[in-house]
Amino acid sequence: METLDVVVVGAGISGLTAAWRLQQAGCSVRVLEANARVGGRTLNHQFAAGDVVEVGGQWVGPTQDRVLALLRELALPTFPLWNRGDNLTLFGGKLKPYRGTIPRFAPHVLLDVLQAQLRFERLSRQIPLEDPAQHPRAGDWDRMTFAEWIRRTLKTAHGRKVFELMAGAVFAASPHEFSLLHALFYVKSGTDFDTILAVEGGAQQDRIVGGSQLISLCLAERLGDALRCGQAVRRVVQDDQGVQLFTDTDSFRARRVIFAIPPTMLLRLQIEPLLPGWRDQLLQRQPQGCVIKCMALYERPFWREQGLSGQATSEHGPVRLTFDNSLPDSPHGILMGFIEGEEARHWAACTEAERRAVVLDCFARYFGEQALAPREYVDKCWADEPYARGCYAALFAPGVWTGGAARLREPVGRLHFAGTETATRWMGYFDGAIEAAERAVAEVLRA
Amino acid sequence: METLDVVVVGAGISGLTAAWRLQQAGCSVRVLEANARVGGRTLNHQFAAGDVVEVGGQWVGPTQDRVLALLRELALPTFPLWNRGDNLTLFGGKLKPYRGTIPRFAPHVLLDVLQAQLRFERLSRQIPLEDPAQHPRAGDWDRMTFAEWIRRTLKTAHGRKVFELMAGAVFAASPHEFSLLHALFYVKSGTDFDTILAVEGGAQQDRIVGGSQLISLCLAERLGDALRCGQAVRRVVQDDQGVQLFTDTDSFRARRVIFAIPPTMLLRLQIEPLLPGWRDQLLQRQPQGCVIKCMALYERPFWREQGLSGQATSEHGPVRLTFDNSLPDSPHGILMGFIEGEEARHWAACTEAERRAVVLDCFARYFGEQALAPREYVDKCWADEPYARGCYAALFAPGVWTGGAARLREPVGRLHFAGTETATRWMGYFDGAIEAAERAVAEVLRA
Repeated sequence: METLDVVVVGAGISGLTAAWRLQQAGCSVRVLEANARVGGRTLNHQFAAGDVVEVGGQWVGPTQDRVLALLRELALPTFPLWNRGDNLTLFGGKLKPYRGTIPRFAPHVLLDVLQAQLRFERLSRQIPLEDPAQHPRAGDWDRMTFAEWIRRTLKTAHGRKVFELMAGAVFAASPHEFSLLHALFYVKSGTDFDTILAVEGGAQQDRIVGGSQLISLCLAERLGDALRCGQAVRRVVQDDQGVQLFTDTDSFRARRVIFAIPPTMLLRLQIEPLLPGWRDQLLQRQPQGCVIKCMALYERPFWREQGLSGQATSEHGPVRLTFDNSLPDSPHGILMGFIEGEEARHWAACTEAERRAVVLDCFARYFGEQALAPREYVDKCWADEPYARGCYAALFAPGVWTGGAARLREPVGRLHFAGTETATRWMGYFDGAIEAAERAVAEVLRA
Repeated sequence: METLDVVVVGAGISGLTAAWRLQQAGCSVRVLEANARVGGRTLNHQFAAGDVVEVGGQWVGPTQDRVLALLRELALPTFPLWNRGDNLTLFGGKLKPYRGTIPRFAPHVLLDVLQAQLRFERLSRQIPLEDPAQHPRAGDWDRMTFAEWIRRTLKTAHGRKVFELMAGAVFAASPHEFSLLHALFYVKSGTDFDTILAVEGGAQQDRIVGGSQLISLCLAERLGDALRCGQAVRRVVQDDQGVQLFTDTDSFRARRVIFAIPPTMLLRLQIEPLLPGWRDQLLQRQPQGCVIKCMALYERPFWREQGLSGQATSEHGPVRLTFDNSLPDSPHGILMGFIEGEEARHWAACTEAERRAVVLDCFARYFGEQALAPREYVDKCWADEPYARGCYAALFAPGVWTGGAARLREPVGRLHFAGTETATRWMGYFDGAIEAAERAVAEVLRA
């Protein structure tokens, strides 16, 4: 049997980038992907009407230098998310228009939210991205959930709801599912509060022409025969000379392996010798967030005629956050909404028809009756994806960072770990996936 | 291929009890156990000196009616844990003797601890054991970690440490790793605070002659050829007629399957059709606790000569809790200590020699220099066990109970779920393992 230089497990952006860089460096490489497709947590969807959108991750933005460079390299152009007109906010039963990132709250609520944001950023700026546990106060911050910090810091019920909404938007989770230290790290990892939340100048600024899955599709094309889809790795056996990988039908041998899969999927592989107990315990404490991404396609973007941007935020679920996801070269209008965290687990258990009804009700609440009759509807429950089991990314539970999560990046013999959850910049985003790939590739090339 | 009535996955107390009851009811049964041994999270260890002790779960106590009945049925006698003499407590650098469950703290600390205990029990008594999420305040209590409740409720630093110590002793975890609702449920599930913490009259009262693994060994003997060890189930395929189970070497077919394994192990099986996303998400949020059980054998129980019980509690780790685990029919003395939660993950990464040194140092701190020179030492890191990956039991993270954890007990087609984590009484204990088995058996027999 041929011994490859490297086998990469997982053909998302992280795995494919790693494989391509290794191939460019002259290594013999195979990428083993469990699904029949590449892309990981990115996935294009073509409406019958022709419009191609993403039911997975979709945005890139400023300071995401690695993914922007990769897009240039792959000659994939971007275009801005539609961001003109009034945003809407629905709090306390009242629908109000606003511009920018923060709605026009009552002055005491605004004060509450801004003070908390400043306080959060003052702490966040201090976090060492390489290892948040090194901060002198890391222990306190990691023993506390983000929810506890919100309860302690925000003085108004309305302000607390705003922060919970932001947690949902950024983490696809409720703030009691991860530690304050993780929240502080994550926001700094994505530059700062404003950058992570904003459309213009922020993480939701730009989209990729043809859909974000094109990143992986283009890389897959370059990798050619080195990529094997439908090859779910089940067992990985490491010895002094190399690593043997077993899928349901085949077996591969390599000098090094790079895993580019979410922590909860890594946990499920049969790795021999066993990963050390502390690693397994930490992986058990990195569950995936939960999101259902929902889209409705209309003949035209009717909300624009009312001067609306298509962006809404609300304290009422299940869709608490919407965007105008229409394509610039299409006459159709596309509304997109997220169901996040606990609500996503609830609605994942329902039928698509039930979800469609409730999602369109939410859209109608924000944009009027016309939203009830789309030409097409699509949604994607990421918890149901067999090799993701959730999105956007893993949440670090209290105690995980201070328990040594930064060391999960370190190789175990010939096994290396990539995937966006091992990144220090833009963890959870495409950019982090690429950083992680570059680090793992550097480790392998050094070895 | 023969179609069995039932295949049980996992030969711990829950799985073996289920299989035996089914066999008694006339069903054809196989138990598939991944390890070469039975017992799950119970495991006997024979010292070279001859004394047989447990490096896993060991105690039974009053109100654990199911396991006490099973012990009678299997003709396995019990004996009380050594509980004479003074207990020791080490807080604030001072070693003090005491009797009973609660040390002689300073009056303001004692008041603080007792008030908090009363408050906790007032809430705990209200929890509906079938489904804690049905309590009107379940939402609030499940969005909060037990650590947050401790910080809010206890007024003294010393009192908070006492509660953290209790969390470690009962859950093998830090109080920020599970929700207040889970803590309230768990304590009521084990009757009440005093019962769960006490030796005499409580969960640490009695031991099983010959070691607790005998429960499983006796059941295994009765099951005979129906038990197959070294058969790790990897893949489970359900269709209209039955279920096919695949191990590394064999395949089995059954009308029904009972899983009697911890949630994090269930998560790792390849089940087809896939478990629904919400189930997978909840299982991702039920990580195992973490404990290293450590024992040193001495020529004689020298601490008894100083009037000490061998029981010590301390704010200083890694061993914060000890017991006299000597056997009544042996001249030897055996000290037992627990390393729990985050400290267990830390010390699991060290060598046994390093652990031995630090554990003996702890023993010496409580019982004097003689403790430094045992005849034998043994410890067991449960996080390193390939098919447990932690002990004592799963922790329910914030949001898990209210997210529908009670529904994890419900069958999925022909798949049924046992294991102590699905019990309503004495979850996490032998007794809960048996309750869960009896429920799953009743489901199967009804079907």
